[in-house]
Amino acid sequence: MIEQVAYRVGEIKPFYAMALLARAKELEAQGRRIIHMEIGEPDFVTPQPIIEAGIAALRSGQVYYTPSSGLPALREAIANWYSMSAGIQISPDRIIVTPGASGASLLAMAALLNPRDTILMADPGYPCNRYLARILEGNPVGIPMTAKNAYQFTADHIESYWSSITKAVLVASPANPTGAILCQATLDALINSVESRGGALVVDETYGGLVYESESITALTLSDQVFVINSFSKYFGMTGWRLGWLVVPDNFIQVADKLAQNLFLAASTPAQYAALAAFRPETIQILEERRMAFQQRRDFLLSKLQVLGFYVPAIPQGAFYIYADCSKFSVNSMAFSQNLLENVGVAVTPGLDFGCNDPHRYIRFAYTTSMERLQEGIERLQTYLS
Amino acid sequence: MIEQVAYRVGEIKPFYAMALLARAKELEAQGRRIIHMEIGEPDFVTPQPIIEAGIAALRSGQVYYTPSSGLPALREAIANWYSMSAGIQISPDRIIVTPGASGASLLAMAALLNPRDTILMADPGYPCNRYLARILEGNPVGIPMTAKNAYQFTADHIESYWSSITKAVLVASPANPTGAILCQATLDALINSVESRGGALVVDETYGGLVYESESITALTLSDQVFVINSFSKYFGMTGWRLGWLVVPDNFIQVADKLAQNLFLAASTPAQYAALAAFRPETIQILEERRMAFQQRRDFLLSKLQVLGFYVPAIPQGAFYIYADCSKFSVNSMAFSQNLLENVGVAVTPGLDFGCNDPHRYIRFAYTTSMERLQEGIERLQTYLS
Ligand SMILES: Cc1ncc(COP(=O)(O)O)c(C=O)c1O
Ligand SMILES: Cc1ncc(COP(=O)(O)O)c(C=O)c1O
Repeated sequence: MIEQVAYRVGEIKPFYAMALLARAKELEAQGRRIIHMEIGEPDFVTPQPIIEAGIAALRSGQVYYTPSSGLPALREAIANWYSMSAGIQISPDRIIVTPGASGASLLAMAALLNPRDTILMADPGYPCNRYLARILEGNPVGIPMTAKNAYQFTADHIESYWSSITKAVLVASPANPTGAILCQATLDALINSVESRGGALVVDETYGGLVYESESITALTLSDQVFVINSFSKYFGMTGWRLGWLVVPDNFIQVADKLAQNLFLAASTPAQYAALAAFRPETIQILEERRMAFQQRRDFLLSKLQVLGFYVPAIPQGAFYIYADCSKFSVNSMAFSQNLLENVGVAVTPGLDFGCNDPHRYIRFAYTTSMERLQEGIERLQTYLS
Repeated sequence: MIEQVAYRVGEIKPFYAMALLARAKELEAQGRRIIHMEIGEPDFVTPQPIIEAGIAALRSGQVYYTPSSGLPALREAIANWYSMSAGIQISPDRIIVTPGASGASLLAMAALLNPRDTILMADPGYPCNRYLARILEGNPVGIPMTAKNAYQFTADHIESYWSSITKAVLVASPANPTGAILCQATLDALINSVESRGGALVVDETYGGLVYESESITALTLSDQVFVINSFSKYFGMTGWRLGWLVVPDNFIQVADKLAQNLFLAASTPAQYAALAAFRPETIQILEERRMAFQQRRDFLLSKLQVLGFYVPAIPQGAFYIYADCSKFSVNSMAFSQNLLENVGVAVTPGLDFGCNDPHRYIRFAYTTSMERLQEGIERLQTYLS
């Protein structure tokens, strides 16, 4: 029997959210009605124009490999979208189409990290980015974010944590799980700080577009040296299609293409043809309506959670998450999550999934379910917690 | 400007086939008619039942993330297929659905290789497997295959090349570019050799099913400790859908699931639903007809190439490639490939793409185009070479 699992695997923790989801499904199979607030995926189905474009692609036999960096028409469509939505000109050559933001992140890290190079990241943060760095033998270093700073990653963090073996900084805006966004001034300072140190800044904009208060800003407006990860999963409602993209600086175009060839061969062809419809006005209109719906859900859930006694130090400005301090109810957010599920059928994600920055104090609520269900969830919590 | 590309990238050579393909497209844009024998992808479109299942999935909104290891129904369908086609019982839990064989290979190597661990592979061989090992900081070691052995990877190779830092052996059957297959006795000896050394055997069965002379045999019939890579790309005609799978030993199930979560999140959902139709009798019938067509093409192309003066030491028994010695015509197969393209519009892949085992002597012909075109290609070669 082969026992020699690679060391990297031992350092990857399975996600508690998965175990909770499995338990939630068990309870559902027993007839319990569960309110799902743990799921990091929009409940809205892919917009109809995208579905129709996907079907048309299949009907016309668009099922062969595309070039590794993506369908030229899609790379151009993404470039046009940057031009329309952000007023910036990005050469389609700099856009590499990938299997989800997951693929984009893997690609960026493979391009940048040598063994033991450190890459700075927010804690709490999206766990896969941390583990992808580790899988590539890089060394992800979590930096504790603080509520007083609205969980924003700032140039001060870089100042404090940069070392001689630091190669890159990964920030997310909007961020998972906090919903924090980086304003232009913060982004600018980050860019300057990283560039002056000769490092690379990777900005995960997977939730770009899902911003409620302010304008969504891409780091590409401020620098052509940043690596920007994006996805069709969240704003565009295409999670299961597995499509995203990476924008690279000019001198990484060949690098990214070579890596994409080997890592993926190419992204899904039907998905790429379908995504050509993602930027059409009728699709954007659907997506903007959904964005309003998310905003309404956020406003509702946030205010109700606060009334219940959860502490949310900064208003989450984007994505579809609320990272809430539950220490009024429990000193162990993992046990608390289990209790909520068992006792009132409300599923949430414990802080432990996002790092080791005081995780026992926090749980993440996702508002990826309808207002009615959110309402029902709040009522159940009210009964249980009062 | 960021100059620090990770070292791994410098060790990945771009594929010459890509440059040749780009040049072929240029010539086509100028009105030249090119005979493509460089393409590693079936010319047949995805079978209609699979396309219809994909369309039905899209129509019914199957566009959300699946579990990381794949749709349970698809894992079961693959297990059933092993039972039907090979008479073996594989637990669906051991089957991880991936984005193509590319994803399966990445997953297997991430599970096994620590930095500097060597993994033995055939040279010539599929280049991405070599580079994936390198991307993960493993150390791929190419073993020269010899024609007198019909390019088969054997236990003798392991005997000669195994060292204290060898962790795994990757073999392909049928192999790209040679079309060699491993017979049961050879596979058995490989399994024993690797297991007795405490290593892991990874068998790339991406071209499984595309076998012409003998029965296609999976290594899973011989051991439950091997890692088997497979794909919906080639035999099932689903290249652009990006779907494959990895079968792991029992004690790697959790490992593979954790890695899949981080590397991919999950494989494409519409593709997984579509693939449920891949094992239906009406689909298998289509695929078997195609297999006959490939065999007919192989027989034709092989005999004509031999008459022309190409030396093909062993009859390629599977996949859709002929790896031919062109030293009668040129001592530089790269220049020869370019000449063929420029002068007679025939595109082939130079040996250099597959390793450093006397590559200047060889070119690869792919019979992924119609009999008429193969015929035309042969006529052009005849005119040019005589
Ligand atoms: C911050 C962040 N980045 C990347 C991803 C990966 O998403 P995908 O691969 O579906 O694009 C996620 C998914 O939840 C995420 O939260
Ligand atoms: C030997 C071999 N393995 C794996 C692959 C990857 O194929 P895919 O990712 O499309 O399944 C290929 C593709 O040509 C191949 O030749």
